[in-house]
Order: sequence, then C-alpha cells, then structure tokens
Amino acid sequence: MKFEIISIGNELLSGRTLNSNLQTICQKLTDIGCNVSRSYVIRDDPAEISHTLNLCISSDSDWIIISGGLGPTFDDMTLSCISSALNLPLEINDIALEMIIARYTDLVKKNIIESFSLTDSRKKMSMLPKNSIPLKNNVGTAPGVLIKYENKNIICLPGVPKEMESILINEVLPTIDTSKINKIKSKVLYVAGITESELAPIINDFISNRNNLYIKSHPKGISNGVYHIELVISFQSNDFSDSLINSTIKDLITSIKIKTNITVDE
Amino acid sequence: MKFEIISIGNELLSGRTLNSNLQTICQKLTDIGCNVSRSYVIRDDPAEISHTLNLCISSDSDWIIISGGLGPTFDDMTLSCISSALNLPLEINDIALEMIIARYTDLVKKNIIESFSLTDSRKKMSMLPKNSIPLKNNVGTAPGVLIKYENKNIICLPGVPKEMESILINEVLPTIDTSKINKIKSKVLYVAGITESELAPIINDFISNRNNLYIKSHPKGISNGVYHIELVISFQSNDFSDSLINSTIKDLITSIKIKTNITVDE
Repeated sequence: MKFEIISIGNELLSGRTLNSNLQTICQKLTDIGCNVSRSYVIRDDPAEISHTLNLCISSDSDWIIISGGLGPTFDDMTLSCISSALNLPLEINDIALEMIIARYTDLVKKNIIESFSLTDSRKKMSMLPKNSIPLKNNVGTAPGVLIKYENKNIICLPGVPKEMESILINEVLPTIDTSKINKIKSKVLYVAGITESELAPIINDFISNRNNLYIKSHPKGISNGVYHIELVISFQSNDFSDSLINSTIKDLITSIKIKTNITVDE
Repeated sequence: MKFEIISIGNELLSGRTLNSNLQTICQKLTDIGCNVSRSYVIRDDPAEISHTLNLCISSDSDWIIISGGLGPTFDDMTLSCISSALNLPLEINDIALEMIIARYTDLVKKNIIESFSLTDSRKKMSMLPKNSIPLKNNVGTAPGVLIKYENKNIICLPGVPKEMESILINEVLPTIDTSKINKIKSKVLYVAGITESELAPIINDFISNRNNLYIKSHPKGISNGVYHIELVISFQSNDFSDSLINSTIKDLITSIKIKTNITVDE
C-alpha cells in the first residue's frame, strides 16, 4: 500500500516553520507497516495545489495525505482546489457543519468565547467537495476530510500539528487495512572507528547474498577523534523470524569487526 | 529567481529523520530574498530520483538544489542518476579527487585514521557528471557539485546537515546574484482573544485594498482560556519603505483592536 504526502504552506518554504508534520505522518505510517513513496511541499497557491494533486492522482499511490489549508482564511484553499481538480462541487456538509457548531458551542460553555454566529469564515470550513466524509477534529475546529476518488483515498488534515496528529491517529490510521502488509522490522547498530568509505564495501558484500535486507549508513561525524556511524538494518518481517534477525545482526557485527579498532554497539 | 529543492533519503520518508535540511536551505535562501517555489522528498531510488529531476528540469525554476546521496555507499546515487537523466557521462573530476585526497591526508595528520588508500568507495565521490564544478566540503569528505544545464543551476549537497550547511553558506549562496531580487520584509504580530475565523474577515478587508502585502495567520491554540494567533505580515520591500511598513502595521493593529478584549503585541 503506497502513500504520498502533500504538505501545503508558504511558511514551510520560507523556512519559518519546520515541517514536523511530515515526520509525524511518516512515523505513524511506518509503525503500522505502510510505505510513504514520496512527498511534496508546496505553497498556498491554487495552481501549485492543483498541479501536485494531479501528479498524485495519476501516480501509483493508494493514499494521498494532504496537510494544511483547511482553515477559515482566504489562503486556506485545499478543498476548493480539490473540488476544481476532481470536478466535485463544494457544498455544505451537514455532518461537518454539526461538528463546527458543536465546537463553538463547547468554546462558549468553557467561556473561551462569549457567543458565536455562523459567519461565512466559519461556514467555509464545512464546505466540502461532494461525497466527502468529514473526520472529527478533537483539538481544533476544521474537520479533516476523506474523499474516495477512483481507487484512491484522499485525506485532508489541518496544518496545525496537534490537530493533524489527533485526526490522523483517531480517524485515519484505524481505517487502514494493514492485514496484507509485509511489515518491516528495523535494528540499529552504532559503529565507531571506521570511515563510511571503509564500511561501504563490507556492507555491500554482506547484503549481496541476502535478500529483503536493506542497510543504510548515516555518518555522525568525528567526536573525540573517532568516526561514528549509525547503521539502520531493515528486514522484511515475513522473510525474517526474530531468531534469523538476531543471527543476521550477529553475522554483520562479525563482518565489521574483522577490521581492528572498531566498536559496534546495539 | 525560483528555486526547487529535492531532499533524497529513505530515512526522511520512514519518519526516522526530521528534514531539518529543507528548513535550513529555505531560511538561508529567504534571508537573501530568494523564493523556494516547491520541494520534493524522495527515496534512494534511481527511478524516483530521475523522475523528480525531470520534473524540475522541465519546470520554471532557475535553481535546483538537491540534498542527499553523495556519499560512498551503494545507495548514494544522486550523481549517477543526474548523469543518466542529463546524458552527462560520469568521469573522475580531478579537482574533486584532490579535495578527497586532501581530506584523508588531513585525517591521517590528525590521527583519526592511520593511513588511507584510494579505494573504489572513495573514488566514487570524485566521479561527477561531465563539466561539473566541485564545491569544497570543509566539514566532511564528499564535495558538493554544481552543474550548469541549459538555463539552470543544479546544486548537489550532502545529506549530513553540517556538511550541507557549510557548502551552502560558503560555496553556493555567494554565487547567487541577488541584485535584481525584489526582497520581502516580514513583521510578526501576536494576537490574543479572538478566533481565527473572526480574524479572517478583518484580514481580508485589510489586504483587499493594499497591494504586495501578504498576511498569514497561524493559530497557536488556546492557553489560559484564551485563543492565540501569530500573524506574519510580508511586504515587498521595493514597494514599502520602513515608515510605510510601520504605519501599515499600526493601521492593522487598529483594525484588529476595533473588536474588544483583544491584545495585539509586536
């Protein structure tokens, strides 16, 4: 099952905001065995949003997750762009409208606002592309949105990290059928006293006669006069039992330690 | 002048690593007045790298900045993908090779490694697409690369953040001609006591009769029972003198404060 992620927001491309949402979404999906195939970061611009959406629609992904652009302001235009690109007219979604009314009613109860009326800015958050399914936002106001289009699930989440994460965890992840996914298990080794260029041929030899095993090295620089490298070893869990993983790690450590002066820690 | 950024690395899409490189590159470019138009995050996969490179080559950007995939390991394949996509054969670049030899010579001098030989993994880092210009890496081994292709500048930087930033600051930014750029100045206001949906029409009215002014609101949630919003106001500096910026900010504060119980801080 393949996922593409679109992060929308000028602040992500001006460098003002670190795109922690992308990491959160990728982590949560990886944890349940899903695979993020690529990601786009784009501006609050209708042409950019439509162009990127069309790239995703015509790709081989099963899910498109979009974060940002669901709020009440003029530059929150994710849903209107989806509406145009997929030819699904925007209309008031009654369930979304109820969610928004419930949110403001609650804010009045808690004395955070004195009263509220359904202004255009507020109604805007309930204007969803035809046949959308609203996703409850327990942290903020704008509901998330699920749109089933051809064979794809398109998910729209707010850009505010806490709201995004709440909807992702409570409303999106439980709907993903992970029963047929070939999960990945990862182990990390910390290697010291060898340069990445010396380690590279050892890793190459090691993986060359083993299938469904991927080893990525992350150089961590020199500290106390010694090179440090993090090795992430990923196994397709259907092909590797826990005991096979352990013996493979042991073999890898032995292969690396053939060179002297190296420490390898799990 | 438009920039596109490609971040390469499985670890960015598994959620293992936060893509701080993207924020760093965007910040540095924004600081000198440049505009990042979009960004891609992709896997260590030749088909993905070539596909994304072709998207950027056929777009309206002037600069393509790629981070990741320059090292000595089998999955560092940025340069071989560029070579295939642009039909520029990989060949040993003598200047890059000298940089790499100088780096290892220095590591021997500092007793970090005992000795070195030019293994295939090390030579790999000096195999650049024909006509590349290597960019000195003061922090690590793999040189950055500049390739001039048709009207575009393609820059390849390592994925290790310190190495990336050093080459960006010392070798890339000084070569960007910013003399003709219409720079952006930004101010931030902190608004408390109003919801984003109440603020939205005020902002809309305010910007509707002012050109080259962009206001983005970032809801910061509820604390101590009060809504907090950050407002980023961006001005095209060619159209706005400092005094015009100050009076515009003053007018904006007045427009917001017409509603009672609101605090606005600069």
